[in-house]
Amino acid sequence: MKARVFRGGAEVPALSPADRGLAYGDGLFETLLAVDGDMPWWHAHWRRLSGGAARLGIAPTDQTLLRSAAADMLGQGRQVLKLILTRGESGRGYLPGDGPPTAILSVHPAPAAETAPLALHWCETRLARQPALAGLKHLNRLENVLARAECARAGYAEGVMCDEHGQVRCATAANIFARIDGVWHTPDTALAGVAGVARAQLLALAPDIRVAELSRAALEGAEAVFLSNAVRGMMAVDRIGETAFAESAAYDTLKQRFLAAHPAFARD
Amino acid sequence: MKARVFRGGAEVPALSPADRGLAYGDGLFETLLAVDGDMPWWHAHWRRLSGGAARLGIAPTDQTLLRSAAADMLGQGRQVLKLILTRGESGRGYLPGDGPPTAILSVHPAPAAETAPLALHWCETRLARQPALAGLKHLNRLENVLARAECARAGYAEGVMCDEHGQVRCATAANIFARIDGVWHTPDTALAGVAGVARAQLLALAPDIRVAELSRAALEGAEAVFLSNAVRGMMAVDRIGETAFAESAAYDTLKQRFLAAHPAFARD
Repeated sequence: MKARVFRGGAEVPALSPADRGLAYGDGLFETLLAVDGDMPWWHAHWRRLSGGAARLGIAPTDQTLLRSAAADMLGQGRQVLKLILTRGESGRGYLPGDGPPTAILSVHPAPAAETAPLALHWCETRLARQPALAGLKHLNRLENVLARAECARAGYAEGVMCDEHGQVRCATAANIFARIDGVWHTPDTALAGVAGVARAQLLALAPDIRVAELSRAALEGAEAVFLSNAVRGMMAVDRIGETAFAESAAYDTLKQRFLAAHPAFARD
Repeated sequence: MKARVFRGGAEVPALSPADRGLAYGDGLFETLLAVDGDMPWWHAHWRRLSGGAARLGIAPTDQTLLRSAAADMLGQGRQVLKLILTRGESGRGYLPGDGPPTAILSVHPAPAAETAPLALHWCETRLARQPALAGLKHLNRLENVLARAECARAGYAEGVMCDEHGQVRCATAANIFARIDGVWHTPDTALAGVAGVARAQLLALAPDIRVAELSRAALEGAEAVFLSNAVRGMMAVDRIGETAFAESAAYDTLKQRFLAAHPAFARD
């Protein structure tokens, strides 16, 4: 893995073991699709990162520096750029210091294109409702790690996560959409889950998507289901546990619109 | 800060930016009091760390190696040893890999002794109920960070944290005990909060301490309140927000018993 570490505006040779990203998950991250060195959603990711940093009280960092450094690291073809922003170093203890933030850039291979619709696991691991952190792509992701490990044990690569009240929130690494009575629905992210960049692009593209609570029963009764994330785009789902979903003309139509607006996500 | 990093059984020069402790807070930590190079509660901390690692599915690591390395780092006087254990490196994505865990040891100055009872802030920041993680001293500590920052803004060094149902859970970096109707009470840690090592030592020393739900009203009406943690031991509280607490003979008696059983925590 190629990685570069910045402390404030200066590149440093290594990550400090006193970094609060390690100590407390005190930071945020973004994973961006890059195609031939171009990051088509850079601005949307940066906007979410900046907004999250403001919510957590993390100092802003230099967008121009990081974008330029990222561009220097990227090559041809499809890649994933991961950007971690932490509150930087401090002494021991939860009290934030006043030092500069840390940024870590790394480049990863893009995942292979899906060759078939996804089958999802119903995760036993619940997401806790925490409005102070909900929506943020923060570094406190043990719930997702446990849910993803649970999917693997059950033979799945993804799964649906509910909160402790049984409301559907998201997949382990994607937002979820369900077509109910001819309308696409996606869960609110004010109580739990990440406000995905791909989700935001879809909501902008199709304002008739309804942001609403989604019960397990409603999801099981949906006409069609798909996932979105900022690296894979839209992904059709044909099964959740024992529940099968048919192919959907409404999904195909929305995906065509999505790919027309965001051609970097076309894989053929 | 002196620090040493181990990847499985081998010391390495630096923390990898691909470590899952940074990426997802995918790990645990312990902070141990050391006095003249001795760590009186090593076994209790190791037991909690091992139990937490088993709950999270993190591979066990070599206690003898880490204890010996820690001892080599410690000097005379009172110090704090911090031990972080993470799931180690992996590729991008929540799915745990099968590589060795990472351990990071660092030595810090011990905090100064309290010269007076503590005044506590009522934190607005709530702890979410998450039984899959409750009790663990894991690295997903943004709630504590936000609460501690809130205390500082309000002019306090510590604060009381409640869950989203208004039940008292803990302080930002300590467990809490309240004397009610002549009996010490401390909140359960099955839904939220850390099962503190000092708390466990107190429960072993005084089996009449009752582990029970504790409402804000019950805490405000308590005869006496104190905090415990594994570095500071027992700390008297004389105020929470506007509520004052008198000196307590019951506290003095319990503290005498605690210091007799654990003389490393005596500061005079």
